[in-house]
Amino acid sequence: MLMVVIVEETRLVNIGAKPVEDYVFETILIFQEGSSTVVLKGSGAFISKAVDVYNALVSRLGDSVELVKVDIGSDRFKGRFKSFIAITVRKKY
Amino acid sequence: MLMVVIVEETRLVNIGAKPVEDYVFETILIFQEGSSTVVLKGSGAFISKAVDVYNALVSRLGDSVELVKVDIGSDRFKGRFKSFIAITVRKKY
Repeated sequence: MLMVVIVEETRLVNIGAKPVEDYVFETILIFQEGSSTVVLKGSGAFISKAVDVYNALVSRLGDSVELVKVDIGSDRFKGRFKSFIAITVRKKY
Repeated sequence: MLMVVIVEETRLVNIGAKPVEDYVFETILIFQEGSSTVVLKGSGAFISKAVDVYNALVSRLGDSVELVKVDIGSDRFKGRFKSFIAITVRKKY
């Protein structure tokens, strides 16, 4: 019996202090390397930037990028709770 | 024929410059007034604060508040595109 297992790798892009365009390019590069799913994660003040990165990605890639889901919540960070957003996007073709 | 139409009112809370707790109280007040669904909307830098308000609301109300959906995108504002988040929450009981 031959089993073919296709592993869909999900890659994480941590949104931080770099310009929005840097994260857009990083995500496009990940898509070009063959991963179809990317999670854009931002914490605290970088939550807003994570949404900026998503919008810039959509404006650049158009219909070929699909919003899978948006998770929000809080992570424990240095003993305090910090809000986060995790935006899962998928490259369609 | 008697028709009973139940209108579920959805109320909008625009997240701006006020402290997080103010928006939490505003949302709880809306729930107490009988509306079960509230949309927390934040634009630009207030996106992060909208998630803070959601987390503070969950930590205060616990299981009785439910996350319905999270929408992200961009709105045209003064000729420019501005990122937004719209967090829909529902009071369960």
